[in-house]
Amino acid sequence: MWPDRRILDLLGIELPIIQSPMAGAQDSDLAVAVAEAGGLGSLPCAMLTPAQVRAEVDSIRRRTARPINLNFFCHTPPHPDPDRELAWRRRLAPYYSEFGLDPERPIAPSNRAPFDSAMCDVVEQCRPQIVSFHFGLPEPGLLRRVQSTGARILSSATTVDEARWLADRGCDAIIAQGTEAGGHRGMFLTEDVTTQLGTIALVPQVVDAVSVPVIAAGGIADGRGIRAAFALGASAVQIGTAYLRCPEARISDVHRRALFGPEARRTAITNVFTGRPARGIVNRVIEELGPLTGIAPQFPLAAAALAPLRKSSEAALSEDFAQMWASQSAPLARELPAGELTRMLASEARR
Amino acid sequence: MWPDRRILDLLGIELPIIQSPMAGAQDSDLAVAVAEAGGLGSLPCAMLTPAQVRAEVDSIRRRTARPINLNFFCHTPPHPDPDRELAWRRRLAPYYSEFGLDPERPIAPSNRAPFDSAMCDVVEQCRPQIVSFHFGLPEPGLLRRVQSTGARILSSATTVDEARWLADRGCDAIIAQGTEAGGHRGMFLTEDVTTQLGTIALVPQVVDAVSVPVIAAGGIADGRGIRAAFALGASAVQIGTAYLRCPEARISDVHRRALFGPEARRTAITNVFTGRPARGIVNRVIEELGPLTGIAPQFPLAAAALAPLRKSSEAALSEDFAQMWASQSAPLARELPAGELTRMLASEARR
Repeated sequence: MWPDRRILDLLGIELPIIQSPMAGAQDSDLAVAVAEAGGLGSLPCAMLTPAQVRAEVDSIRRRTARPINLNFFCHTPPHPDPDRELAWRRRLAPYYSEFGLDPERPIAPSNRAPFDSAMCDVVEQCRPQIVSFHFGLPEPGLLRRVQSTGARILSSATTVDEARWLADRGCDAIIAQGTEAGGHRGMFLTEDVTTQLGTIALVPQVVDAVSVPVIAAGGIADGRGIRAAFALGASAVQIGTAYLRCPEARISDVHRRALFGPEARRTAITNVFTGRPARGIVNRVIEELGPLTGIAPQFPLAAAALAPLRKSSEAALSEDFAQMWASQSAPLARELPAGELTRMLASEARR
Repeated sequence: MWPDRRILDLLGIELPIIQSPMAGAQDSDLAVAVAEAGGLGSLPCAMLTPAQVRAEVDSIRRRTARPINLNFFCHTPPHPDPDRELAWRRRLAPYYSEFGLDPERPIAPSNRAPFDSAMCDVVEQCRPQIVSFHFGLPEPGLLRRVQSTGARILSSATTVDEARWLADRGCDAIIAQGTEAGGHRGMFLTEDVTTQLGTIALVPQVVDAVSVPVIAAGGIADGRGIRAAFALGASAVQIGTAYLRCPEARISDVHRRALFGPEARRTAITNVFTGRPARGIVNRVIEELGPLTGIAPQFPLAAAALAPLRKSSEAALSEDFAQMWASQSAPLARELPAGELTRMLASEARR
């Protein structure tokens, strides 16, 4: 039925389709819908508190008995750099004035926290079948605690070096994330975007470099992409943007509108929203400050000062400062309930 | 045998493999070897005079009766901009000194000429079965003359808009060139590299947008990539970098050495060599001046002042200023005679 059963057997799922955890763009509803359809539903936890994660897992467990994936960021917490943050606020000040916001008002810190002992407690309590990480892996002690729960461990590689690094540290499968992918690049051994490979180049090189199964991610949005990923040697795919047009996605109205329009045909890898490279639909803030800028504070500090602008922009239904993560295959996405989309993707892939 | 015979029937070839024309990196030997193996051999003509093209075609015809592809650039000739060229020479002057070259010495103009009436005469005389263009299409009068010879016309699209533009003007098939590709981006309706899509995203969107068959290019270097291209809806593939390690490739020793080494794992899209974005192995000149710079004169003027540095660097077996075009799949390339490689690629793709 499927060319490679390794991921299906490893994760206990029916379909080789992993729904990408998309922090800030979904909650448990999307994860449940995908899980019930036979794929792997994922809950992004990077912007949740431990209590919120527990509540979401409880909600998932009430609605499905299928395996679920909890996803965490594991970036190195940034060194506070008041000068750089001040310079960033000064650069954004004219935009604050434009939106009638006080550039001097206190701003809330970003809520993107790396995986830590408190979150590890939650994992030990909730025992998700799968735990996936973005930006590398947590420190060895925490990783061992997660492994001890019996969870399968996944993480993203954007280069062959990162794939080997993850495999050497015990990842059960590697997500090979090509440059087409929407949202944050998982890159963690390098900050140089010229190292980042397109999916058709990355996947076979990662497959050749590691012995664990490989999950292809980046630009896969329909059955053609899934079949292509299998041809490249992947055992499964991770799909994000194709789910953003589902009613289960929790995105701003302006983001949803842009995904339906011609804007979705032009995305860029930018660090203006959070300080880390991530792919989104090109808009005014990306054009005027980026796509890549040296003045944005370290991840996730840049997000704090940008957040009020983003919020005002989205509230005004303006794309100008909206955060609109999307892959280069956004125009291939269809507006369907997530369960139906999952089954359709599988059916197209098997044709 | 093959999932889609449209390109085979259109071009009169046995295998759905087109050898990318690689100006400055090959001559008729590579084209003949690929043609005799059943693929489409291509002769890059952009850096040849009409007399040289005729001589090369004669040489090909003596060695194979298979169809051949003559490839031409059709960029708009640049407006001379003496100030910009002077600024470029000034920027390069310290490097000239480092290599013991006189920064004031006269430099030869770049020999990359767009397709013109004299070349069209050659096409009318030589009657190649296929003519392909890079950077769009020649002006309508010239295009009609080429079409009147009965030649099939191909050109490269890097966006959906470019694909539609080419199809509307009568291209018989569209080469969808993803960002992974080595050498010059075919982009011609835009100069903005954020519009450029990875192969896995570009190919299905182009397939959906045009009714002519689509040839996938960019990052395809083995049978896995070919099968992936078919899955994405392509009817054939165009492969370049995988042929650079063949003995028939005419590249510098330093380029060949880099293709065998770890350097080949890091490429970038740069305009420092010619003024137009092209992917090559990252070296000192790319790191110090690029990858993309606003000071390089318009294509192909930038190449003139860089050429002496490139020549000195390559003569000294130094990678620093060498031009080393390569795709992101360069590490997948194998060292084999081109005919053997072509047959192996086809055999892997059919497995």
